[in-house]
Amino acid sequence: MAKRGMLIVLSGPSGVGKGTVRKEIFSQEGNNFDYSISMTTRQMRPGEVDGKDYYFVSKEEFEKEIADGGMLEYAQYVDNYYGTPLKYVNEMLDAGKDVFLEIEVKGAMQVREKVSDGLFIFLTPPDLMELRQRIINRGTDDLETIDKRMEKAKDEIEMMQNYDYAVVNDEVAKAAEKIKTIIRAERWRVKRFLPDYKKQLGVD
Amino acid sequence: MAKRGMLIVLSGPSGVGKGTVRKEIFSQEGNNFDYSISMTTRQMRPGEVDGKDYYFVSKEEFEKEIADGGMLEYAQYVDNYYGTPLKYVNEMLDAGKDVFLEIEVKGAMQVREKVSDGLFIFLTPPDLMELRQRIINRGTDDLETIDKRMEKAKDEIEMMQNYDYAVVNDEVAKAAEKIKTIIRAERWRVKRFLPDYKKQLGVD
Repeated sequence: MAKRGMLIVLSGPSGVGKGTVRKEIFSQEGNNFDYSISMTTRQMRPGEVDGKDYYFVSKEEFEKEIADGGMLEYAQYVDNYYGTPLKYVNEMLDAGKDVFLEIEVKGAMQVREKVSDGLFIFLTPPDLMELRQRIINRGTDDLETIDKRMEKAKDEIEMMQNYDYAVVNDEVAKAAEKIKTIIRAERWRVKRFLPDYKKQLGVD
Repeated sequence: MAKRGMLIVLSGPSGVGKGTVRKEIFSQEGNNFDYSISMTTRQMRPGEVDGKDYYFVSKEEFEKEIADGGMLEYAQYVDNYYGTPLKYVNEMLDAGKDVFLEIEVKGAMQVREKVSDGLFIFLTPPDLMELRQRIINRGTDDLETIDKRMEKAKDEIEMMQNYDYAVVNDEVAKAAEKIKTIIRAERWRVKRFLPDYKKQLGVD
């Protein structure tokens, strides 16, 4: 039996640009992992393709899938469901393939509970870094602006602690490259590598 | 005060090629970390340079350093001392620089106890038989010494579980590139940058 694949989860706050970064990653050659297409009940937008951008289904179909235990994770946003069908993910992982999910933070936390050895990457907006810089430099912004940003920063930091890595989305190409670097490196983590390696050497 | 640097530890069984891989890494441009030169009492080998490959010192000098609490780690192998002087490492880390150590496994475990947030990378031979061949080819040891090292190597492979990452030294250039990838990725680990980040934002 092949070694089970690694589940890679890219998430982050709404509007941070997860989809754009994910598309950049998958526009490139030589990725050693597959993208798991999400399922949604929202309307297809111009240019989107069913079975490529999402599996577009009705509310009834989605709810049947939930009831049947067929979703790895799901959430509702603005009256629409978004989620990851379990079947494809499991087939790929069982075949030893690494699988890449790009999902909302609520969904990512559901996956974290079910798949403890997944790789969780948080995409964070550059204004958090800017905020840090402004506080370091001190006194170029009014207090109200800083306070608003501080609140946002606190929420995002709260989310970030549940992830293994955090990448700033300052430039799409850079963020994509960092995420690919993280995925490569993670394959050599002892906790992922050692069980298989010991087996090969015949050492217990 | 600058953020304290990351301590990077490359270790692995005797004869695995740690030194060669380390030299390959430091022969390249653009590394964001400095090499901490080890101190040893062993004989200088042809081509080695004092103060570059090692600080070559007498047994008496080394033991005085130990007594003075000046060593971050040290160990004895085949009647010689090998170790890392603490002073340089601390200066670099305090200045926010990442420091790279290439040390023996016993020393690495001493560092692990003292520096829990270090990055520990284990270099491992393609297999045990190849390790034996490498030791024979080096031609500087008798068979009894080689057998001792083989036993030690098995123990050391078991020690891999005390490391964060393991890289197989099948090809020097590949192993060097993997280690550099790991170091890059590790900088984006949430556990490394979040405490500092929260502190600077004044968030708990």
